[in-house]
Amino acid sequence: MNIRLYNAYILNQDFDIVFGEVHISDGKIAHIGEPKTNLIWDRNIDMNNSLVLHGFSNCHTHSPMTLLRSYSDDLALADWLNKAIFPIEARMTTEDCYYGTLLAILEYLSGGVIAIGDMYFHQDSIIQACLDSGFKIVGIGSAADINGDTESQLEALEQNYQKYNSYSPLCAYKLGFHAQYTASDNLIQGIARLARKYQDQVCAHLSETREEVQSCITRHKMTPPRYLVKNGVFDFGGSAYHCVHLDKNDIELLKEKNVTIVTNPSSNLKLASGIADIVNYAKKGLKIAIGTDGAASNNSLDMLKEIYLTAVLSKVRNNPTALTAKDVLKMAITNGARALGITSGILKEGNDADLTAISFDLPNMRPINNIINNVVYSSTSKNIILTMIKGKILYEKGEYNIGISADEIYKYCDKAIKRLIQQAN
Amino acid sequence: MNIRLYNAYILNQDFDIVFGEVHISDGKIAHIGEPKTNLIWDRNIDMNNSLVLHGFSNCHTHSPMTLLRSYSDDLALADWLNKAIFPIEARMTTEDCYYGTLLAILEYLSGGVIAIGDMYFHQDSIIQACLDSGFKIVGIGSAADINGDTESQLEALEQNYQKYNSYSPLCAYKLGFHAQYTASDNLIQGIARLARKYQDQVCAHLSETREEVQSCITRHKMTPPRYLVKNGVFDFGGSAYHCVHLDKNDIELLKEKNVTIVTNPSSNLKLASGIADIVNYAKKGLKIAIGTDGAASNNSLDMLKEIYLTAVLSKVRNNPTALTAKDVLKMAITNGARALGITSGILKEGNDADLTAISFDLPNMRPINNIINNVVYSSTSKNIILTMIKGKILYEKGEYNIGISADEIYKYCDKAIKRLIQQAN
Repeated sequence: MNIRLYNAYILNQDFDIVFGEVHISDGKIAHIGEPKTNLIWDRNIDMNNSLVLHGFSNCHTHSPMTLLRSYSDDLALADWLNKAIFPIEARMTTEDCYYGTLLAILEYLSGGVIAIGDMYFHQDSIIQACLDSGFKIVGIGSAADINGDTESQLEALEQNYQKYNSYSPLCAYKLGFHAQYTASDNLIQGIARLARKYQDQVCAHLSETREEVQSCITRHKMTPPRYLVKNGVFDFGGSAYHCVHLDKNDIELLKEKNVTIVTNPSSNLKLASGIADIVNYAKKGLKIAIGTDGAASNNSLDMLKEIYLTAVLSKVRNNPTALTAKDVLKMAITNGARALGITSGILKEGNDADLTAISFDLPNMRPINNIINNVVYSSTSKNIILTMIKGKILYEKGEYNIGISADEIYKYCDKAIKRLIQQAN
Repeated sequence: MNIRLYNAYILNQDFDIVFGEVHISDGKIAHIGEPKTNLIWDRNIDMNNSLVLHGFSNCHTHSPMTLLRSYSDDLALADWLNKAIFPIEARMTTEDCYYGTLLAILEYLSGGVIAIGDMYFHQDSIIQACLDSGFKIVGIGSAADINGDTESQLEALEQNYQKYNSYSPLCAYKLGFHAQYTASDNLIQGIARLARKYQDQVCAHLSETREEVQSCITRHKMTPPRYLVKNGVFDFGGSAYHCVHLDKNDIELLKEKNVTIVTNPSSNLKLASGIADIVNYAKKGLKIAIGTDGAASNNSLDMLKEIYLTAVLSKVRNNPTALTAKDVLKMAITNGARALGITSGILKEGNDADLTAISFDLPNMRPINNIINNVVYSSTSKNIILTMIKGKILYEKGEYNIGISADEIYKYCDKAIKRLIQQAN
């Protein structure tokens, strides 16, 4: 399949804007720049002055939680989890997780997302939904042993790790556990053993709330990052989700261990966790990527919303010059891709064609004074007109091309959540 | 013109959801509820289970600033105003303001906004652009006498007040001044005289930044609200924009004077002004409405974004139970309408048909667990499929019906800002 995108602004590998064409051949970017017309194309698409850019990596999400969107809001965190979320999750089937993920994929694609890092249960169905759709996923281990099953948790984690790292070019798997507060010392040490064995990264929720930090200090006499680092969890790097409450020493430790901070601004606001001091983390040399968290605590899966919030929350925590639009876009594209490792994050010949396109043909994007600022401060997912993964167009102007219709997905999900609520009550 | 909207969820006057039909006759809502089929319709629209609701009132905006969208970001407030914004504004013509307003109207309509409170210069063009489009506007006086022209400012204000309060059913005018820091004592006393003379409200920017409050204390030995109240400015109520930095006494004074607080969350984040403690203000009995501020400090004019931010910022400043989705929706619809006074804010027979419709046929709105939560926490302007003012459909599924094409507006605005930048440099 050879595709030519012409009449396009292009965000190139240096994050500069050039005007020209992007050619895609056999899933790869074949050419960026001046027109070349002596070729035969399967699709020849006039981009009509849209911006073509590498797609976004949503580095922290729980895709099947789409089913729980708007089911329960405006509650305190403990009530929300214990009374609303957990009783439903306990009843979610593999099929529910499959369709919940498909629903999420519709939202990702129509929002310019080309890859996710997903932590949830029933991961076989989640990964299968992505592969069936042509969508890139890194499954993240979610080991937790509050029920005492430490060994089986570690075994399952290692099995998934081995299986999905040699399963499909669209997927990979990372060692991971839910969080220090749902893990025993034994589990944490087991995770660190696996990290050493495979010399690989580890991912987890980290220092999301003040209460979490306080309870870790009570339990372990140290902050969550210090506790994990001391146990060797991050000896080969990794990603830490949320990180709203880090002290100076935490920041230094995570920097030393080359851990990427994945910020989730909407979720942190809605659950009143706080505002992460991204500017300070970045200044200290930490790499920042961005994620949506799940749809039940956000309540959307819209990376452009998270990009906007990362920018403006950094300003309100610091000053209006803190982080430029370009800084934030790099977090969502380049840093995110590096954290996941299954997409390049760089629009360059030879790389997988994992890209999206943003149109300026709606009033919120006019006039065109500064394309990058328009994208970061003005655009929403309604401006996304095309998303392509490995050279295959999966979304184009409201139409999905993932092998199943949006209506069929909606129908399943509407029915599933009704059933789950009934079962839980 | 008789229009029937059927197969609709409807947010009724009690903010409950009912299913049925909305009939519109001669600009008014003629019927809400059960089907009635024995009538003849000019338009018979299947709403396909969308939500029909009263449209949003954007209570604080500067419409022509669309021209300056993304022209200058990531700057400190003083640099942004003095080096970037003011030099351009000094060169904006009446025609620029007319077309800049048309561009804003496209964004308002496609975002469910049916009325604005607009403070800017060249107000004749701004109001004319709204009237030519069929859009509702309350012009807000922007008197300021840093150049010493106190009397002419007051005269112009009174002339506009008289003219536009008996000009068209689509427009009204409110006494107003820019802010205490751009006004002399004489101007403030003149404004208070006009308020007494017409027994009417006054609007102004108020306590937007810490620096503003501090400089007022230095200058007048009291906070901005105290200074204005002492001078009688709010003796007949009014609206105060931003109000990020109010102390306990300020809140009491503004409550006593029945002043509506118009919150502008995006702008306050982006310019690093702070997060207004809306929950506390509301608890103390102040009425809260919502606005976008201008497109240069936001950078969009998207009320659904402001609604989301008002909700989640209230949570992060307080706790996750602070403000429910319904509370915030009422601010954007009912309180906003009451603050402006040219739209009812209530979907009820006999009222002007100023309404909008939100579709659930996109993945970010599924499944449908709770319609109001979906609107507040998940929807974006891409879900808006219809906006009607005084019974006339001005926006429907991407098409505008305002007497001029979007392309013509884009073309003018793209050219205008290029010219203005050239002139300013």
